[in-house]
Amino acid sequence: MIQASIVTIGNEILSGQTVDTNAAHLSTKLLSTGVPVVSSYVVRDEIDAIVRGLNLASADADVILTTGGLGPTDDDLTRQAFAKFLGVELELQDELLEHIQKFFAARDRQMPERNKIQAYIPAGAKALPNIGTAPGIMAVLDSRSSILDSRPASSNQYQASRLLIALPGVPPEMNWMFRESVAAELKRFAAGQAVVVKKLKCFGAGESTIAEMLGTMMQRGRNPLINCTVSSGIITLHIIATADDEKEAERMAQKDEKTLQKTLGELVYGRADESLAGVVAERLSRRKKTLAVAESCTGGLVSKLLTDIPGASEYFKSGWITYSNEAKTGELGVPAGLIEKYGAVSEQIARAMAQGARKKAGTDYAIGITGIAGPGGATEQKPVGLVYIGVDYENGCDIKRCLFSGNRRFIRLRAAQTVLNMLRLKLNI
Amino acid sequence: MIQASIVTIGNEILSGQTVDTNAAHLSTKLLSTGVPVVSSYVVRDEIDAIVRGLNLASADADVILTTGGLGPTDDDLTRQAFAKFLGVELELQDELLEHIQKFFAARDRQMPERNKIQAYIPAGAKALPNIGTAPGIMAVLDSRSSILDSRPASSNQYQASRLLIALPGVPPEMNWMFRESVAAELKRFAAGQAVVVKKLKCFGAGESTIAEMLGTMMQRGRNPLINCTVSSGIITLHIIATADDEKEAERMAQKDEKTLQKTLGELVYGRADESLAGVVAERLSRRKKTLAVAESCTGGLVSKLLTDIPGASEYFKSGWITYSNEAKTGELGVPAGLIEKYGAVSEQIARAMAQGARKKAGTDYAIGITGIAGPGGATEQKPVGLVYIGVDYENGCDIKRCLFSGNRRFIRLRAAQTVLNMLRLKLNI
Repeated sequence: MIQASIVTIGNEILSGQTVDTNAAHLSTKLLSTGVPVVSSYVVRDEIDAIVRGLNLASADADVILTTGGLGPTDDDLTRQAFAKFLGVELELQDELLEHIQKFFAARDRQMPERNKIQAYIPAGAKALPNIGTAPGIMAVLDSRSSILDSRPASSNQYQASRLLIALPGVPPEMNWMFRESVAAELKRFAAGQAVVVKKLKCFGAGESTIAEMLGTMMQRGRNPLINCTVSSGIITLHIIATADDEKEAERMAQKDEKTLQKTLGELVYGRADESLAGVVAERLSRRKKTLAVAESCTGGLVSKLLTDIPGASEYFKSGWITYSNEAKTGELGVPAGLIEKYGAVSEQIARAMAQGARKKAGTDYAIGITGIAGPGGATEQKPVGLVYIGVDYENGCDIKRCLFSGNRRFIRLRAAQTVLNMLRLKLNI
Repeated sequence: MIQASIVTIGNEILSGQTVDTNAAHLSTKLLSTGVPVVSSYVVRDEIDAIVRGLNLASADADVILTTGGLGPTDDDLTRQAFAKFLGVELELQDELLEHIQKFFAARDRQMPERNKIQAYIPAGAKALPNIGTAPGIMAVLDSRSSILDSRPASSNQYQASRLLIALPGVPPEMNWMFRESVAAELKRFAAGQAVVVKKLKCFGAGESTIAEMLGTMMQRGRNPLINCTVSSGIITLHIIATADDEKEAERMAQKDEKTLQKTLGELVYGRADESLAGVVAERLSRRKKTLAVAESCTGGLVSKLLTDIPGASEYFKSGWITYSNEAKTGELGVPAGLIEKYGAVSEQIARAMAQGARKKAGTDYAIGITGIAGPGGATEQKPVGLVYIGVDYENGCDIKRCLFSGNRRFIRLRAAQTVLNMLRLKLNI
């Protein structure tokens, strides 16, 4: 079985100033291409430390990925360490230099002299394109750790070899390079070993509730393995099916996917990397419906999440962030008397905000959110975390009263997710 | 110099399903007690893998900390691996068993049989108390890796030895144990070595430009060491000063901090963990100024960043997300003829949005942003990434034309950061 090892390069990781999210992201991506990670090393920005890490990783695995150390500064030493590990020299590649110069020219800037180092690659290795200035490095090694011509014609040739790839440490660059170059290379490298990973994304219940609903399906050692992770209130179920061939693994994963969807019902909102906003956006677009958003406590977060999605202008018409009472009255026509009577954080105001937004924007749906995100602003009757959410539509206005716990950031996020989920269920019918 | 190495134990880290935040937390804590981390290993839940990790860490460092694998289940194998590494047997400690039984009794539960394993400790090692059921393990080794009587009387005795500590993987338990037991032990172990870390946050220039401005200050091996990290366009400079005593380290760090601030001038926007929005918020509050925001391509992101800060209602009055031309005209009074003449993405519209927002909200400042975040919407004259930013104020309106590269997410973030930075500089005067 083909396995991978990750070497993370950077003093900022060792000093704790940066959390190594790259290694975790790489691990999930590797697993979903069928290559599990068996070990992971974090080493200093020093040539010898990096070479030692590469040696340790080589002892564990067939695929060695490094992240970091490809920048233009003196403590970026990955390319030097790769050359030392491979026993070759660094070579200037004119194409790379040209690419980097163009990168700066497109920004009306002269290339700083130090960026020239990024055009050097160990002799025999291959440069991987990047959206930033730092190209990645890929080398295919034979059983005696000599560099093979970068890309063997058949996957058989790969069998006796080892794959060594250096990725940049900047997360968007690393992700882009993995998607554009590394994923396909790994697929060829790991031919004959099939792992299919499917993901179901859930919202609306806690981890333990979902675990109870799934019962023995979540047992360790089961195949497919069902794992559960939680991030920012979103629960992701990973279905990891292993088999000799892709077709069988796919069949096993699909079967479990169906069972999980049936068991969890409306708690499942999507697959793979779908977001709640993405699902709402897709449903609005497909049904040619439009939306307006009026936010108080979430301060633009709901609008931000919805407009993160490309093509948002199709359904997203207008948004208001009416933080002050004057803005609620002046912009959305919320009666001042209503605020005085019930307070700005109330069912009545959430409704009036949603209704006012829909009327002004002339949309099919409108959202109104008002609440206390904290840490200040609470009263005895209205604690931090109290949020009223309204969804106005042609035939009525749904209101939900929520009491979230946690800090400001969490309360705002949970309020935004809750309204997106309300809208998702509404668009389901 | 006394240095540490961290061994993280757990398949869930290697599979990417859990991000290893423990290692980062431990690293900062170790550094602030004067013990820098030189390497970090992630190993599988297998005795031999853990022993190999301990051997690797021992080769690098004097202090070896492990996290994870102290639970009661079959894949918790840290205590067995410690015993194997130390060449001793596990011994039942009656006190520990009693403690664990009490833990369950206090919760009206019988101790599950499997928890009994947590009362076993390698012979000669010391148990560290925990708020959970799993005690930590500490062993002090002499130069031949034999266990010394757990706690030498003088710190001198420590000099020739090595410190080995197993911490639980559950973050609150790990943090508690570090604070209550480990910190004091480390202070004694590392007596006579002080490290002070300061951070400066910069925006407005790339990593390589900043490196060029700093020149030899960023040389490797320099003390204080100056490290540079980049995250979402924000550059953080870390000043790491090492000295015999805390006072001297503080003095050295402060001296460099001043020099860096002088050299980089306006590029430095804050310290420690400050955000651009936080600095803008602080300046608006302090000067009792108010703000309104009109966003098109950023779709609420600028408002979201500003209202992330507690107390935002003091300065943030109103926000508009005018995605459609009708919203720009209807909500902000942008003349329809102006949009027709120059297009919605133009200097003129950014200005009209900012002016309209300030007029309607009656604030001291107002922001107007319009641009093409992509991937769609570009024309030959107006490419993806073109963004116009306006900041309107009593005596005028500043306009900036930007051309950002990258994906939708990055373009939106960079546009939001750029306007926050404009506002920061404006509030500087």
